[in-house]
Amino acid sequence: MENEYSSIHYDKYLQLNKILDAQKLRSNEFDKPAHDEMLFIIIHQVYELWFKEIIHDLNSVIKLFGKEKVQDRQISDAISRLDRISKIQKILVDQIEIIETITPLDFLDFRNYLLPASGFQSFQFRQIEILFGLKNENRVSYNQCAYSGVFSKKEQVILNKLEEGDSMFDLLDKWLERIPFLNFSISNQSNQSFNFIKEYKKAVGNMLKLEALAISKTHFINDHEKNIRLKMLDDSRVYFKSIFDKNNHNEKLKKGELKLSYKATMSALLINLYRDEPILRQPYLFLQKLIDIDDLLTSWRNRHSQMVLRIIGKKIGTGGSSGFDYLKKTADNHRIFYDLHNISTLMIPRSELPILPVELKNKLNFSFNQ
Amino acid sequence: MENEYSSIHYDKYLQLNKILDAQKLRSNEFDKPAHDEMLFIIIHQVYELWFKEIIHDLNSVIKLFGKEKVQDRQISDAISRLDRISKIQKILVDQIEIIETITPLDFLDFRNYLLPASGFQSFQFRQIEILFGLKNENRVSYNQCAYSGVFSKKEQVILNKLEEGDSMFDLLDKWLERIPFLNFSISNQSNQSFNFIKEYKKAVGNMLKLEALAISKTHFINDHEKNIRLKMLDDSRVYFKSIFDKNNHNEKLKKGELKLSYKATMSALLINLYRDEPILRQPYLFLQKLIDIDDLLTSWRNRHSQMVLRIIGKKIGTGGSSGFDYLKKTADNHRIFYDLHNISTLMIPRSELPILPVELKNKLNFSFNQ
Amino acid sequence: MENEYSSIHYDKYLQLNKILDAQKLRSNEFDKPAHDEMLFIIIHQVYELWFKEIIHDLNSVIKLFGKEKVQDRQISDAISRLDRISKIQKILVDQIEIIETITPLDFLDFRNYLLPASGFQSFQFRQIEILFGLKNENRVSYNQCAYSGVFSKKEQVILNKLEEGDSMFDLLDKWLERIPFLNFSISNQSNQSFNFIKEYKKAVGNMLKLEALAISKTHFINDHEKNIRLKMLDDSRVYFKSIFDKNNHNEKLKKGELKLSYKATMSALLINLYRDEPILRQPYLFLQKLIDIDDLLTSWRNRHSQMVLRIIGKKIGTGGSSGFDYLKKTADNHRIFYDLHNISTLMIPRSELPILPVELKNKLNFSFNQ
Amino acid sequence: MENEYSSIHYDKYLQLNKILDAQKLRSNEFDKPAHDEMLFIIIHQVYELWFKEIIHDLNSVIKLFGKEKVQDRQISDAISRLDRISKIQKILVDQIEIIETITPLDFLDFRNYLLPASGFQSFQFRQIEILFGLKNENRVSYNQCAYSGVFSKKEQVILNKLEEGDSMFDLLDKWLERIPFLNFSISNQSNQSFNFIKEYKKAVGNMLKLEALAISKTHFINDHEKNIRLKMLDDSRVYFKSIFDKNNHNEKLKKGELKLSYKATMSALLINLYRDEPILRQPYLFLQKLIDIDDLLTSWRNRHSQMVLRIIGKKIGTGGSSGFDYLKKTADNHRIFYDLHNISTLMIPRSELPILPVELKNKLNFSFNQ
Repeated sequence: MENEYSSIHYDKYLQLNKILDAQKLRSNEFDKPAHDEMLFIIIHQVYELWFKEIIHDLNSVIKLFGKEKVQDRQISDAISRLDRISKIQKILVDQIEIIETITPLDFLDFRNYLLPASGFQSFQFRQIEILFGLKNENRVSYNQCAYSGVFSKKEQVILNKLEEGDSMFDLLDKWLERIPFLNFSISNQSNQSFNFIKEYKKAVGNMLKLEALAISKTHFINDHEKNIRLKMLDDSRVYFKSIFDKNNHNEKLKKGELKLSYKATMSALLINLYRDEPILRQPYLFLQKLIDIDDLLTSWRNRHSQMVLRIIGKKIGTGGSSGFDYLKKTADNHRIFYDLHNISTLMIPRSELPILPVELKNKLNFSFNQ
Repeated sequence: MENEYSSIHYDKYLQLNKILDAQKLRSNEFDKPAHDEMLFIIIHQVYELWFKEIIHDLNSVIKLFGKEKVQDRQISDAISRLDRISKIQKILVDQIEIIETITPLDFLDFRNYLLPASGFQSFQFRQIEILFGLKNENRVSYNQCAYSGVFSKKEQVILNKLEEGDSMFDLLDKWLERIPFLNFSISNQSNQSFNFIKEYKKAVGNMLKLEALAISKTHFINDHEKNIRLKMLDDSRVYFKSIFDKNNHNEKLKKGELKLSYKATMSALLINLYRDEPILRQPYLFLQKLIDIDDLLTSWRNRHSQMVLRIIGKKIGTGGSSGFDYLKKTADNHRIFYDLHNISTLMIPRSELPILPVELKNKLNFSFNQ
Repeated sequence: MENEYSSIHYDKYLQLNKILDAQKLRSNEFDKPAHDEMLFIIIHQVYELWFKEIIHDLNSVIKLFGKEKVQDRQISDAISRLDRISKIQKILVDQIEIIETITPLDFLDFRNYLLPASGFQSFQFRQIEILFGLKNENRVSYNQCAYSGVFSKKEQVILNKLEEGDSMFDLLDKWLERIPFLNFSISNQSNQSFNFIKEYKKAVGNMLKLEALAISKTHFINDHEKNIRLKMLDDSRVYFKSIFDKNNHNEKLKKGELKLSYKATMSALLINLYRDEPILRQPYLFLQKLIDIDDLLTSWRNRHSQMVLRIIGKKIGTGGSSGFDYLKKTADNHRIFYDLHNISTLMIPRSELPILPVELKNKLNFSFNQ
Repeated sequence: MENEYSSIHYDKYLQLNKILDAQKLRSNEFDKPAHDEMLFIIIHQVYELWFKEIIHDLNSVIKLFGKEKVQDRQISDAISRLDRISKIQKILVDQIEIIETITPLDFLDFRNYLLPASGFQSFQFRQIEILFGLKNENRVSYNQCAYSGVFSKKEQVILNKLEEGDSMFDLLDKWLERIPFLNFSISNQSNQSFNFIKEYKKAVGNMLKLEALAISKTHFINDHEKNIRLKMLDDSRVYFKSIFDKNNHNEKLKKGELKLSYKATMSALLINLYRDEPILRQPYLFLQKLIDIDDLLTSWRNRHSQMVLRIIGKKIGTGGSSGFDYLKKTADNHRIFYDLHNISTLMIPRSELPILPVELKNKLNFSFNQ
């Protein structure tokens, strides 16, 4: 039996006996050794190890956000873990260069032995997608195959259970809905209050009005340009109006054009606009990290599709997938936090922002500073 | 007057008086200084400097390949220059991370002052696209604008002239057509010859036949799997047949589905398959570099579109372009050397390749080794 | 006269007429055109542009920290700017790969024309070093030259003035000294107080005692190992004691072994240990960013020295510097925030940390949560 | 029993049952779960997987170069494999950023459980060093420990055997010695010959003489500068003379200042200078790749030392090594192909190179071109 003060050797700690004994080349078995098959195996194992770490970190964030009340220090932990995931993702993208050192001709030396194994069968990658919040109905279909065929029954049970649980996206939606700053009664004594949506609508209206006026009056651009600019302002006005319309938002949710609820969207907007208030700093950074991760996932899918095009061309991939086209489609359609990207479209310049009442500003600051 | 042995100072040599005096913030002019505008200016200037270097290198390669006979050492030079371009491209992609440090809110502080300046107006980038071989008719249209409006008349004249000249793609096509190995009479004395296309067709036929036989006979997979595999083989057979059909190829050229001529395609295939012969080594590396560059251009377009989505959302970009959507489309449609990627689809394993006659092999080797 | 609503064109905004007209190849002037000189010029110009941005960001942080009271939102801004600097630095390191595409033989084609221009003459890089806090007395000497010879009198005046002002390091030192949490009377009513150094010493003592006991008692390691571990504990004890000794610290300051004051060091330690308290989050991230930057500066110096070794070997560099050796030395000796790295050595596990009194914890939290 | 046409599943092929079941957290065993220990284990496993691939590729290159006659196509293969190694190395360096997401405080949560496991115990990394050519006598000593203590007897036997065999460096030395171009009788009929060293000495002499003359005559620099330049020329003259002196070279070999033999050094110089001749192209690229790898190994050691400084400070590392200082020293002293770097110092501009006799040039070209 071991003990905290017993010694441990590097090899044993890392279980290198298992790790370094898991590369059995099929091309060797069939007496046609293909040098590059070793790389093919090892890089896939490396990917799976990183997937395990991503799941480990992601699950811990999901656990933190599963609580009714998320503490500031928990948001900090979540940010650190998401930051780690994004750093791993960068490596996942960059190391595609390594697999691309297998040339198409060299790949053909062992490609046949792999059939029908395919990266599409990665159980861990499927878990990651589900944990982040990719829904079955939004998946790009793959060779018209039912997904159920890809994984074992036991694995399928686990995936189904994961899908039923709260994903990172679901928890984000709920957390943003719970954030108490959208409609804020400032103190018990006074009956002052701050209604973000109302104030923000007003500010947007003012901004557009002033801008239109300035454009009309200026002598520095000609009428043609003036009209273009005024037209752009009009477009903005219509856009903003549709955004603030809750019914319109719910309509889009139904159609699947949006995924984040109206209230959650407004909270995300508020966090982005007032990120300088101390209490909103960590929430802001948290949203940023989710966008980083979504972008990197998209980069990975794009690079992955390019790599497949390069090594196997338009041939049907191992596992029967028409590799390149399928992967390209997932890059375009499997985004998860798209609605957070959209927040940028709703912002107005700092100088036009509704000013927070002093009492509210104090509430958002540290006790120490009072 | 200067002389080879006169001294020069770092600042003067680099003309830093110009370089470091070219950052005039519009937000300063209008007395609303926006800290991040400096970065916005500087990173665009950095991009333009790199574009200048790319044009410098690309032009030198175009010049080398414009000759009737391209020497091996010139191919080597071309590879080095293309390799440099690809390394620059990697930095162009990676440094998008720097511009993403401008948050959407901070960008709004100076965005209005920039209208309608837009990256779409980069004259050098347009040149690069044309030099590589992007044709006007293949361009994704941009705001329904005629391209002519974007550049000055003088610039438009230059662009038109560039389009009339030979692009890298055109020269590649011609060079591949000139390569003398497709149909090779081995020596003057004998009337032996080696016809690559004929031999290759035969090899493909053999390979498919043997594979079908082996699948039919095996006891290790069940009938269902056998049928899937045999079906895949059939698809391959049809595919290869269509590929070898010159008329079919020309049909696709007309429709714009292919761009490389039949003969050039066969030469590219030959180079890829027999890259181990000394004389084909540099040509092979040259083709690889073109694929690298094409991939990196695609990566750049993808990352660029993501950056735009992140910083300005779905808003209309500076210059009136609907940034994200436009850029996304160019990533999918502006590939130039796509046909080279396709070569991978045509390859067969080394073990199945037609064996080159000894006399031919000698011809492809160094004199020294004879 | 321009106006906020006047239009601006991309080229004019970026002053590309200057930027793209600043590459005059000396090899062309002497009628021995060397293709690669273009890259040599352009990459140096790119470096200088980035240096300008770094100075712009760094100066803004110095300004923020020059104030008597640094607000939390200012620390946030400082972090964002430093983060940007670190991202630029990564590119500065990575793009060394581009300059390495100039082979030694190609460099010789124009090397002679550059004499004695040298990167050592970069006025902006010198400014960056000074702004971060590199002192003249800590500089590695360069060819036994007086530094005064390198820059013009006007430039030298500017550098002298910069050295007299507060560097980032100086302001860090002062800011850490001002931080009010080292000795904290919790409320006006009570005369409770929390003395960090006293409590921390106690915690370290306890930890070492318990660990020694556990090692002595365990049956899981043999006596030889026990003794090694106990010896290591003893070393730790001596080390911690010396650290807490203010006189010892001041002694080291005099010798130049340390640069951060005793009080500032203790504050930095406290921030690192209690980084989970909301009010300490941003200060913690700020310290992290400074370490990032210091590490990247070291990476840059290391990579730079390798590049010089590769391209010019051990030859005397342009400008007369013995390139490689000089640069290698600066990598080892020009660290600025070394003392922050050292903080890691002083830490103890979270489980052993002195527990903060509730009243203090509340003070460090947001008003809203009270 | 399996067969080439039996199917294989992704999980089984990659043996994920082993790979993903090899992460047993010691902190869990002792009931003090530390979240970050998972990353610590996984990243080390990833490193070991990559080490396995490096050994696989490196061994194949060593095998190719172990033959009496190395074919051009084998040099091509060697270059591809070394290129792959360099790409892996880049990832090894870049992913240090991932391990740096473990903060010093978090590392302390499980650091004690790891004692005395240490990266120094990596058997595979030791093999890589030996395979490249690091000799025991050149190793930086580590805690005054005999190396024999680190590895098991069985492992030590393997390492000893490896050290007795030919390393990549040894084979490079021998291969360069065998290269037939240093002293070349051009044809059997004529008794013409080309003696590289003799011709090169002459060229160097001419170059220096002409340069001195030009400097003396110029009116464009003042006497002070003239003298500096003439002094630099003198230094060059002395340097070149010492280089060409075989006895001097052998003296340095004895002292350990050089490692490559005189003849091998001259061959490496010739390859670098006449790399444009077709037959020397691949040899040139091969030498370049070895330099890439050596540089990346140094970068890895530098980054590794920084990471250790950051996470554990100057504390004694796990395993009892004084991490930072030891690693820093290895970065400075464990270079293997340093002599190849030095070649740059010996080069002269292309315009001054001895012209190869036509017959020789033909020999170095392809048969096809004759």
